[in-house]
Amino acid sequence: MLSNSIADVNGSDLANDTALRLLDDYQRVRQQTLALCRPLQTEDYVVQPIADVSPPKWHLGHTAWFFEQFILCAYANDYIPCNKNYNYIFNSYYESVGERVFRSNRGNISRPTVEEVFAYRKHVDDAMSDFLTHHTPNSKVVDIIALGLQHEQQHQELLLMDIKYILGHNPLFPAYQSFEKASNPSGSTSNANNINIAEGVYDVGYDGEGFRFDNEEGHHKVFLHAFEIQDRLITNGEFLEFMQAGGYTDFRYWLSDGWEWVKTNKVDAPLYWIQQEGQWFEYALRGLHELDLHAPVSHISYFEADAFASWKEMRLPSEFEWEVACGITQAKIPQEANFLETGHFTPTSPAKQNNQMYGDLWEWTSSAYLPYPYFKKEEGALGEYNGKFMVNQMVLRGGSFATSRIHIRPTYRNFFQPHLRWQFSGLRLAKHI
Amino acid sequence: MLSNSIADVNGSDLANDTALRLLDDYQRVRQQTLALCRPLQTEDYVVQPIADVSPPKWHLGHTAWFFEQFILCAYANDYIPCNKNYNYIFNSYYESVGERVFRSNRGNISRPTVEEVFAYRKHVDDAMSDFLTHHTPNSKVVDIIALGLQHEQQHQELLLMDIKYILGHNPLFPAYQSFEKASNPSGSTSNANNINIAEGVYDVGYDGEGFRFDNEEGHHKVFLHAFEIQDRLITNGEFLEFMQAGGYTDFRYWLSDGWEWVKTNKVDAPLYWIQQEGQWFEYALRGLHELDLHAPVSHISYFEADAFASWKEMRLPSEFEWEVACGITQAKIPQEANFLETGHFTPTSPAKQNNQMYGDLWEWTSSAYLPYPYFKKEEGALGEYNGKFMVNQMVLRGGSFATSRIHIRPTYRNFFQPHLRWQFSGLRLAKHI
Amino acid sequence: MLSNSIADVNGSDLANDTALRLLDDYQRVRQQTLALCRPLQTEDYVVQPIADVSPPKWHLGHTAWFFEQFILCAYANDYIPCNKNYNYIFNSYYESVGERVFRSNRGNISRPTVEEVFAYRKHVDDAMSDFLTHHTPNSKVVDIIALGLQHEQQHQELLLMDIKYILGHNPLFPAYQSFEKASNPSGSTSNANNINIAEGVYDVGYDGEGFRFDNEEGHHKVFLHAFEIQDRLITNGEFLEFMQAGGYTDFRYWLSDGWEWVKTNKVDAPLYWIQQEGQWFEYALRGLHELDLHAPVSHISYFEADAFASWKEMRLPSEFEWEVACGITQAKIPQEANFLETGHFTPTSPAKQNNQMYGDLWEWTSSAYLPYPYFKKEEGALGEYNGKFMVNQMVLRGGSFATSRIHIRPTYRNFFQPHLRWQFSGLRLAKHI
Amino acid sequence: MLSNSIADVNGSDLANDTALRLLDDYQRVRQQTLALCRPLQTEDYVVQPIADVSPPKWHLGHTAWFFEQFILCAYANDYIPCNKNYNYIFNSYYESVGERVFRSNRGNISRPTVEEVFAYRKHVDDAMSDFLTHHTPNSKVVDIIALGLQHEQQHQELLLMDIKYILGHNPLFPAYQSFEKASNPSGSTSNANNINIAEGVYDVGYDGEGFRFDNEEGHHKVFLHAFEIQDRLITNGEFLEFMQAGGYTDFRYWLSDGWEWVKTNKVDAPLYWIQQEGQWFEYALRGLHELDLHAPVSHISYFEADAFASWKEMRLPSEFEWEVACGITQAKIPQEANFLETGHFTPTSPAKQNNQMYGDLWEWTSSAYLPYPYFKKEEGALGEYNGKFMVNQMVLRGGSFATSRIHIRPTYRNFFQPHLRWQFSGLRLAKHI
Repeated sequence: MLSNSIADVNGSDLANDTALRLLDDYQRVRQQTLALCRPLQTEDYVVQPIADVSPPKWHLGHTAWFFEQFILCAYANDYIPCNKNYNYIFNSYYESVGERVFRSNRGNISRPTVEEVFAYRKHVDDAMSDFLTHHTPNSKVVDIIALGLQHEQQHQELLLMDIKYILGHNPLFPAYQSFEKASNPSGSTSNANNINIAEGVYDVGYDGEGFRFDNEEGHHKVFLHAFEIQDRLITNGEFLEFMQAGGYTDFRYWLSDGWEWVKTNKVDAPLYWIQQEGQWFEYALRGLHELDLHAPVSHISYFEADAFASWKEMRLPSEFEWEVACGITQAKIPQEANFLETGHFTPTSPAKQNNQMYGDLWEWTSSAYLPYPYFKKEEGALGEYNGKFMVNQMVLRGGSFATSRIHIRPTYRNFFQPHLRWQFSGLRLAKHI
Repeated sequence: MLSNSIADVNGSDLANDTALRLLDDYQRVRQQTLALCRPLQTEDYVVQPIADVSPPKWHLGHTAWFFEQFILCAYANDYIPCNKNYNYIFNSYYESVGERVFRSNRGNISRPTVEEVFAYRKHVDDAMSDFLTHHTPNSKVVDIIALGLQHEQQHQELLLMDIKYILGHNPLFPAYQSFEKASNPSGSTSNANNINIAEGVYDVGYDGEGFRFDNEEGHHKVFLHAFEIQDRLITNGEFLEFMQAGGYTDFRYWLSDGWEWVKTNKVDAPLYWIQQEGQWFEYALRGLHELDLHAPVSHISYFEADAFASWKEMRLPSEFEWEVACGITQAKIPQEANFLETGHFTPTSPAKQNNQMYGDLWEWTSSAYLPYPYFKKEEGALGEYNGKFMVNQMVLRGGSFATSRIHIRPTYRNFFQPHLRWQFSGLRLAKHI
Repeated sequence: MLSNSIADVNGSDLANDTALRLLDDYQRVRQQTLALCRPLQTEDYVVQPIADVSPPKWHLGHTAWFFEQFILCAYANDYIPCNKNYNYIFNSYYESVGERVFRSNRGNISRPTVEEVFAYRKHVDDAMSDFLTHHTPNSKVVDIIALGLQHEQQHQELLLMDIKYILGHNPLFPAYQSFEKASNPSGSTSNANNINIAEGVYDVGYDGEGFRFDNEEGHHKVFLHAFEIQDRLITNGEFLEFMQAGGYTDFRYWLSDGWEWVKTNKVDAPLYWIQQEGQWFEYALRGLHELDLHAPVSHISYFEADAFASWKEMRLPSEFEWEVACGITQAKIPQEANFLETGHFTPTSPAKQNNQMYGDLWEWTSSAYLPYPYFKKEEGALGEYNGKFMVNQMVLRGGSFATSRIHIRPTYRNFFQPHLRWQFSGLRLAKHI
Repeated sequence: MLSNSIADVNGSDLANDTALRLLDDYQRVRQQTLALCRPLQTEDYVVQPIADVSPPKWHLGHTAWFFEQFILCAYANDYIPCNKNYNYIFNSYYESVGERVFRSNRGNISRPTVEEVFAYRKHVDDAMSDFLTHHTPNSKVVDIIALGLQHEQQHQELLLMDIKYILGHNPLFPAYQSFEKASNPSGSTSNANNINIAEGVYDVGYDGEGFRFDNEEGHHKVFLHAFEIQDRLITNGEFLEFMQAGGYTDFRYWLSDGWEWVKTNKVDAPLYWIQQEGQWFEYALRGLHELDLHAPVSHISYFEADAFASWKEMRLPSEFEWEVACGITQAKIPQEANFLETGHFTPTSPAKQNNQMYGDLWEWTSSAYLPYPYFKKEEGALGEYNGKFMVNQMVLRGGSFATSRIHIRPTYRNFFQPHLRWQFSGLRLAKHI
């Protein structure tokens, strides 16, 4: 896990040993990205089955490009870029930084090869190591490096999402990594309990010293009416009941756009559910396996989450209800390391056992993704990080089993368009009382 | 203007004279729809240049169908429908009520003719008159009739929007109705002032006895941080400055989806602005005329409103900030009758002169269109009225010159997708203090 | 029927009485267009259900525009155009003549009104009458007027096709014109006979003095191998057998593009066939009626014609086989006037009774629409008439019941893209022997 | 080059040594496919930048599947398929053989890996070797194997086309294989001469004993009017003149569909031409290099070829004119082996020097791709080979530098849709005299 070194030095001049601690963080995060890719075949790095999914090769190049572009080219005077065309190839959406390959074209680009991309990463890593060893970065530089590492950790989860999509849509259903199934039964077999929260004015938003994204800044007050919220996620078994009750064929449960989405895409189950001879299977990173009814339902869109809630005559919590409930229940941030270290590749929802309320799956909320009262975007290209996406998206909270543990905090705001579901998304229900 | 008879009787048994007052309202509203269409040629009733615009003929039939479907077929035992195919043709989106013509196909249907649609309206009106003369409707029926009249008034504004689109996109630019230009200069020539609002918990949402839509119900509390809000709308002149400063060509002001929209649609000015030989003109219901720099800018999308605010380093008010500001300033509801009676076909923004803060143009807010805390949709088909659209839309407040005065109230929530701009939309700015 | 006056004077100076005979032709043809529209309601003139169909109003304006543009503006010195915007509105595809309304936008244009379009026609007709009364047109002008009249007659058939599409896709299925059903049974009840044609070099293409289109010019030789060709069109009954044999669900009968077309558009019957409670009906200009099994099958695409032939283990004739067969059998050109005069609105296929081989329906041939050996397009805008469409289209021969009789000749080449079927199209079969 | 063994034994029982000669051919052709892929990186095998282009990996699998499906599964009793899912993955368009991956999805499939596909080929090759060593195939089997080898050779050219597209659209413009530029100047510097052909009845179509495709069978007669045809291909220099004369911006030269294609796709040069700082470059298999004005223009669509001819006031030859001209001039079939053996990766058009009229580039003809008079498709899945594509395509003749020499014969018919140009296509002109 990333140390707190970054937060400690934020805003002050740095002594040389701080630079070394930063380098240590840098190397650990960058290694983790490579570790994630180890089970892949070369071919898996290249393809892009849908525009939302990027080829793993692109993630590897793009996260290196971030450091090259925003640190090395900007602050390391003697740095020579690896290849002048890489800016064009590995820029994602930063309009400030020039032309770029159309997103939907990323899967058409066979070169640079995977090997060349690894070499690009090494080129950047060597230069970063050199830079941090021989320079004392000022606080601005430290902030950007910290952002770059958080950015890379976000891409680690994207990598997993995209790898799952690539392998899970292959007719051969190859496993990402096989392993023994956990011996203790996962998921929940008992009913969800409701946690009651009283009405009042609450504080929300990030209010500390450590790293946070611009979109969670702006500590502010909200008024919440009294509500109750479930203490665990909805399970596959519960979702199957919704399906068996005709959930996907009854327009009354659906938002109008959701109903169009269901009909246009002929949606009739969560993303990775596959029915074979009357039996439901689910593709997971360990391969195709029988659906586990006690595990939390995952890979659902906002439309599906909302329709399920409507069928249950409840609703999704707002992002602030969710955040306040976290604080009040003093839900523990999951202590264990993430799946790379544990080998658990599935959400396990042990919420009730150990008061760990979240961290299994991103949870859809009823909140649109909008700026906080005092939101102000950064100057320059980094200002394009979060703000410009604040329309037509819904907020998810909590983090998933594939999220870096350091990103799991009550104020963290994730966001996706309401029809998307290749992310590790689930839901819990709430209602006013 | 619609009397308050409906509100008076809401929820109680009705004496016969109440039915007659309801009939009187019914006839007045229905006549107004016809009055709106009087300047049209038969051909204007038929076309549908884009899917969002419906042919005027369809509006006429659909608003009749509402009363036929939800009152006459349901409550008038001896009613014989005008034509059994009209349910298929004039249903809008009520999934509960069966199959219907695809929205984008409405402009392909030459029959029934305009004359036959007028006959359909008369058929329904005669039956409604008969029904209300000889029966004492219960409160449920009264509620549905009241809803039907409000629904028809909403379609009156839609009619104007669609007529403007149809005529304003015709190469001949025909006027809807010519008239003398107002002698006193319209619009604002002085700077906007800011109204300051202190932080605190405020009450929002509809809290009275009269008619209200389901989406504004749920009187509840919100916490607002201190902010200031302009006392008038942004003018054409101010928007032109944005354009001249390169507003449409600099991505930094735009949301990501907005920037895509600008580029894909080659947007470079508000909807009805037309440049001829270096001079800006605007198509209005009175025809093509020179752009009035002092009039409020209209027919802009949320994307444009947001980009303008971003350029000004301000932001749009939230719907609650807007609603609270209305209450605090005791902004008067415009007293004069609407344009049909006055012959004013353009927004005039006399805000500062007479403390009439709103009612010229719908004002984009920064709020996504979402359910209020205690929102609950109606049973049956009428439950499809508002709730199912609560995703991917933004709230507009205030009402336009083309809005029935009875709809103009601080709690009324209008909503459109962020790229749409054929509605009578404008903006004012706000910021936190 | 158009007199032969045009041919008589072609290429020579004209005496004044020739101009008057031309005027007489002009007036007769122009009147016929109006007669065709008499059964329409105003609304029917306006709509455009698919891009291929033009609003009747547009046909009326466009055919007037042709004479305004190519005769009056070019040769009548004192002519004042009716409205300078009409060139933009009524130009069809002549790139030489400037910008124009996108084809798919024609149905969005409510103005000019139908009445104004009639006034436009009168404006042009008056000017043409004046021009031909007071001037002696040279042979160039006579040629263009002759072309304009042939052009108008082509649009008369297009008008019928488009009116049928508009009314036949309306949920109310209104009749274009009701009339008593013919008392004598239409169509064929006996088997088709085959006509044998010996191999050899044959002459094809137009070789006379009268009017002909540029695409049929270039009298030339072709070698044909011996073949046989049916003496009548395929009937609805025969086509129904194909359907009942699974014709629309067995890919083996279909061209690859045709099979895609069937699946994408869910095609399972000819265009105007409608099944209600197990019974087949057909929409015709006289309204919806029970399918007549003995009438020739109509409104089929090339793909369907080809698939039917494939199922029968035969093929379509080439355009030259068809033309040569006409000459050899001395098939009579139908003597009777067209449907406007007879009131017969359906193909009647009386081929076998009276040796009238063609003129009921356009017949798909196996020939792609390509230039003849000596093809040379006209100079200027009129050169855009036929040549630029010579790719991706198939030739049809023979003419339909809705074709001006003067267009019915063995060398006339009609053409459509292989997926289109709103034209009056049928088929007959051939094979090599 | 493939021996003539196949032709020798066609239709008769085979002695065992014939089977061995067939095996020898088999191995030589299969090896050549692998040789073609040798310069590729693993990543290059995977991508599919446009639907028309298939990933090289798919070509490798598909050509193996052909033998597995049509020989081994059908005739080798003890054969065990390599992987039951490969039928789904590697079937191309044979509807008879079951479901398959959508063409446009081929580039989304990372597994089987390249290595696994090579193993698949080896599995099939071993089985084929075993089959041909231990069985005496009957003539039917020999025919299918011969077809399979011709099929594989066709895919060899497709492989080159697709590889060129993949590498030539990569921002890095990697070379497929670098080599020294030929010392002797390629292409033509002198004017084209015209060859005159007299009118008459000519024999066309394949009339021998060797292998031929079903679409070139049906030896038959055609009548040709007198014409002249150029003795060499049009050069880059000549095409540049067309561009400089405004060829891509003047609609008069273009077919209507072609003009739409130019505008929609913003086409302004042949496919691989790239302008950098005013200088024209061309991407070739040896990399990006300065445009050679004397080399034949390549990678043009039918639309471009036709527009060029129109600008020159000439036309493209018909496929029969081309075929007859070949016979009359006794144009030599190029004797040298193909580019794999010579290392020449570009068309060199040495036509005039050595009377080798064709074989540099496929030449667009003015003929639509249609069946010959006596065309009859094969029974079963192999009947889907050519016939079902006979609509909306144009014929190309002659063969390119990347075509297996054994495919280069005067009767061979290649075909593409008129807008496509990733094939190695050029043009020569003709006209009637």
